[in-house]
Amino acid sequence: MWLKGYNGTSVKDIVDEAGIPKGSFYNYFDSKEEFVIEALNKFVNWGRSLAEPILTDTSLSPLNRLKKLFDYKIEMLVNDMQLKKGCFASNIAMELADVNDKLGKIVYDAFEEMKRMQVVCIQEAIDTGEISKDTNAKDMTDFIENVFRGAMIEMKASKSDRALRLSRKYIFDKLLV
Amino acid sequence: MWLKGYNGTSVKDIVDEAGIPKGSFYNYFDSKEEFVIEALNKFVNWGRSLAEPILTDTSLSPLNRLKKLFDYKIEMLVNDMQLKKGCFASNIAMELADVNDKLGKIVYDAFEEMKRMQVVCIQEAIDTGEISKDTNAKDMTDFIENVFRGAMIEMKASKSDRALRLSRKYIFDKLLV
Repeated sequence: MWLKGYNGTSVKDIVDEAGIPKGSFYNYFDSKEEFVIEALNKFVNWGRSLAEPILTDTSLSPLNRLKKLFDYKIEMLVNDMQLKKGCFASNIAMELADVNDKLGKIVYDAFEEMKRMQVVCIQEAIDTGEISKDTNAKDMTDFIENVFRGAMIEMKASKSDRALRLSRKYIFDKLLV
Repeated sequence: MWLKGYNGTSVKDIVDEAGIPKGSFYNYFDSKEEFVIEALNKFVNWGRSLAEPILTDTSLSPLNRLKKLFDYKIEMLVNDMQLKKGCFASNIAMELADVNDKLGKIVYDAFEEMKRMQVVCIQEAIDTGEISKDTNAKDMTDFIENVFRGAMIEMKASKSDRALRLSRKYIFDKLLV
């Protein structure tokens, strides 16, 4: 579903991948919608478990933690995901938020949750003087996340890491200064 | 298809909307894939017809043309589209580029085509000294487009124009300077 989308993935695809009989899907989930909500929860927890050790690593300055997280995400997209898949929550927002308010809201809450630690880290970079005092930590976090999401759209279409690396350059050379 | 996605729209949905019998779809298109390729062409031409008068309006400075285009796009998304739909090409990239290389390539070419006039306008802003000489017009255009695409993802999930307006602020206060 991460690769093929919600409507591009049938319950049959899911049970075939899991190696279980089709009927048993409904022992666990009332519907494919309930399945995607669980998948989004799992994605948020997974994302947090990857970001937390980096964003709380006090052996690095706050700005260097942000750079390390950004580089980590780029390398994961390039090496582990071969420039595919991207952010599961963003994919679901693009495909479904316009026609399913409930899923839109769940994705929005997921976005906010995933940004929480990053806001704290940017605020720390402001407080320690690594970046300008007139930076708004929440606005900047929101902006950076949207930059990254947009770069993933170009990544998918172009099968290239150019947009990801260009985003890193502008964010750290022009914005987090 | 712009609203519901490729897999969320059946040939029946298309012919019902057009008010023609189902069989006649195949008089015009061999497949839904051929239909989406035609739709993408139409979208690019439509986008160009809207952007061209703004980006070539020599009564405004190049930077003010870019601002006017950005504001025009935001108002269209807010007022005409009610914070839905977004960019058809981006939606198709997100939903299909990972599993359909041909469509990914077509969307990528569409992206490049839609950016062409903007590169020229940014270069003019550089040449006339409105923005810094060390700006790279193509890189900056690519970055701005990706910012906008990412902001549309948040727009869809949040049903809010906040990400669009925040993007405008950062682009014109921090980047096109």
